[in-house]
Amino acid sequence: MSKVNPRTPKGFRDFLPADMLKREYVMNTVRDVFQTFGFEPLQTPIIELQETLFGKYGEEAENLIYSVSHGRGSKEALSMRYDLTVPLARVVAQYESSLSFPFKRYQMSPVFRGERPQKGRYREFYQCDVDIVGVADTSADAEVIAVVVTALKRLGFPQFTVKINHRQLLTAIGQYSGVPDAQLPDLYRSVDKFDKIGADGVGRELEERGIAPDVVRRMLDLITQQRPGTGNLDFLESALGDLEAARVSIAQLRGLAVDLEDAGVTPDDYAFDLTMVRGLGYYTGPIFETVITEPNIGSISGGGRYDDLIGLFRRESLPTTGVSLGIERIIDLMDVFALYPDDIGGTVVQALVTVFDESTRRDSARLAARLREGGIRTELFMEDKKLGKQFNHADKKGVRLVAVIGPDEAAQGVVKLKRLADGHEQVVALADAVASARQLLDLR
Amino acid sequence: MSKVNPRTPKGFRDFLPADMLKREYVMNTVRDVFQTFGFEPLQTPIIELQETLFGKYGEEAENLIYSVSHGRGSKEALSMRYDLTVPLARVVAQYESSLSFPFKRYQMSPVFRGERPQKGRYREFYQCDVDIVGVADTSADAEVIAVVVTALKRLGFPQFTVKINHRQLLTAIGQYSGVPDAQLPDLYRSVDKFDKIGADGVGRELEERGIAPDVVRRMLDLITQQRPGTGNLDFLESALGDLEAARVSIAQLRGLAVDLEDAGVTPDDYAFDLTMVRGLGYYTGPIFETVITEPNIGSISGGGRYDDLIGLFRRESLPTTGVSLGIERIIDLMDVFALYPDDIGGTVVQALVTVFDESTRRDSARLAARLREGGIRTELFMEDKKLGKQFNHADKKGVRLVAVIGPDEAAQGVVKLKRLADGHEQVVALADAVASARQLLDLR
Repeated sequence: MSKVNPRTPKGFRDFLPADMLKREYVMNTVRDVFQTFGFEPLQTPIIELQETLFGKYGEEAENLIYSVSHGRGSKEALSMRYDLTVPLARVVAQYESSLSFPFKRYQMSPVFRGERPQKGRYREFYQCDVDIVGVADTSADAEVIAVVVTALKRLGFPQFTVKINHRQLLTAIGQYSGVPDAQLPDLYRSVDKFDKIGADGVGRELEERGIAPDVVRRMLDLITQQRPGTGNLDFLESALGDLEAARVSIAQLRGLAVDLEDAGVTPDDYAFDLTMVRGLGYYTGPIFETVITEPNIGSISGGGRYDDLIGLFRRESLPTTGVSLGIERIIDLMDVFALYPDDIGGTVVQALVTVFDESTRRDSARLAARLREGGIRTELFMEDKKLGKQFNHADKKGVRLVAVIGPDEAAQGVVKLKRLADGHEQVVALADAVASARQLLDLR
Repeated sequence: MSKVNPRTPKGFRDFLPADMLKREYVMNTVRDVFQTFGFEPLQTPIIELQETLFGKYGEEAENLIYSVSHGRGSKEALSMRYDLTVPLARVVAQYESSLSFPFKRYQMSPVFRGERPQKGRYREFYQCDVDIVGVADTSADAEVIAVVVTALKRLGFPQFTVKINHRQLLTAIGQYSGVPDAQLPDLYRSVDKFDKIGADGVGRELEERGIAPDVVRRMLDLITQQRPGTGNLDFLESALGDLEAARVSIAQLRGLAVDLEDAGVTPDDYAFDLTMVRGLGYYTGPIFETVITEPNIGSISGGGRYDDLIGLFRRESLPTTGVSLGIERIIDLMDVFALYPDDIGGTVVQALVTVFDESTRRDSARLAARLREGGIRTELFMEDKKLGKQFNHADKKGVRLVAVIGPDEAAQGVVKLKRLADGHEQVVALADAVASARQLLDLR
């Protein structure tokens, strides 16, 4: 058979052990926070019916959805999932009688998009979502924001801000400023670039789209206020409080501020920022985006309220809010900010049991079994190599403790334990090997 | 937009929270055993190049491999992975300079096969593999067997047997009995059905394929010996010890028995069973299969040595051995044998904080934040419902502890904690809520 060049397709990645240990640390930490807030695990299949996904993301995105088929053919048109939100909506509609509402779930799973690969953008990547189904009140929005804040703090991120806006408030600002209804989508699209092109860029773009300069100026003046706490809300209320949509959405954001306080999220953690627009069209209420501004690396989490999506699979919709943590980005940033704990080395192995020679092989094997029974993650070296090479293997992998049983040790029923970091050595009876190894490894 | 009927494609599953908690319990237990034995996590992409997968599984299997494409088109022919073994071989060849050998990895991931769905057979299912790359010696085979035995015992399986055979020994038996070389594949195929059709069925089938009755009888007599310990090996050695292939493979199996003893696997856990054939053609040495015989539910793990596979991606091959735990089957059997611990209920939530009325909502929210900070997985009830309905919600989900703050409790700065299992109630100061809740929940 002809040899095949070993490689991955463009935009797809392998995670070797050292990377996996970092990914698992982040995902386990985040999962723990999700569960602390009472979110339940859910898993949907990677393959969905095409009809489940199509018509939800817009035409451009639909081009990026992978279709799936096999040699035997299939009566069903199949697609690979594009995100975790549409599958959640399907699940809620499909199993509503067996779910207990409010339904709170998390899912951490890969999704697939046939985008052009580039730095930090892959065709298979993990999404990491929490959503609350069945609660119209802002207490739910506050809770998903609190989850993000808690997770980022638990991971050690020193500085971030959750930007909060409201879909209807933005609409009200546009209407109040004089943007024609037909051009409101243009408004969202341009304001969405605020972080990249600034107020001037947004203004220029809107004028090019034919919106009158005084309208643009009025709108920009309203959205670029930067008053701390609820100051932006006070300002907008006095400016456009007579507009029903503005009044309602401002009241909701005020309620959200109270709920955030109760949930332990302080005003330092968030800001009402009227320039923040979430791209996706399905949001209906409060929207949130977490950014790191020093250095300015943009969004690491986004979400909001989308009360209509489930209605695409069910007679009546259900109020829903949620956030997605940009877990791939967060994993990369953990390195940038040096947030990984020291004991996440490049290996799971805590102790390497070497094999001195054939005469002591069985002693080493039995010691490895003993250490494993004592809860120590142990590798028994298996190739026929000199002791020096075996130490090199431990060193290259980052194993912290090495055990040696030569003929002398075997005759005396002892083992030599060596901690590589500081070269500390100890010779102990086999019966004490577990206790000594645990102590040298600083395990409780 | 027209409504879509919410459903999954045929052969694909959703896992709702109660199922997920069971799956995660099994996978976490198994992962922990893998790591104790020093296996490192690896993750390969779900999508591989078609050329990586094709030519490895046989034509029939190739028909079951899903192809993948998207609207924008792609220059690469893409497929969804069919197992985790071929991707491992690719990884070893692709990254050999950055890996340290022996390379021991585990992977627990979904694979995809377009088979006709039936009870217990799905098109997307998890595989759960450990493999050791770079060790020709039977100590590696013993270790992967020890991993299986340890994992099954840790999960609580009361009774199982690892059947062990050797690919070359089976060939030697065939040759010795007089089976023509060209018909050896027929021999493997028929003996593979031994568990289903018995010795008579295998004999009949081989005779129908044109093998002489006395040859079949001689062969069956050799493979159906059931002597305990190494008795079968002793018998075969005296019968066909002059044949080089038999001598070598019997010596390897004897070495394996010694290695198993050192690894803590007792003769009660395994048997040399010459009727066991692993289907896949790529095995080259010892092969293993774990079965549960009471009741007779067949194989829950399989594996063996496959020293040639990596050579399909690399100039020289590397000796490799591994096992795959039938994790989906094991998850089902845990229910059959009632092996799940009691505290895996249907929910992650340990405490539900109810909301008595609008006047105490903020007190409840703050209590929930406090319990979460104390490490208790807490749900704050969010819909506007009567207290009775909130208790029903806790009951339906299986939440063990419910907290109530009514106006009286709020005024006194206390909370009523109620354990649902025995109705035990306790009124405690808010400052003591975490400690009392932990005690009522039996948390350390």
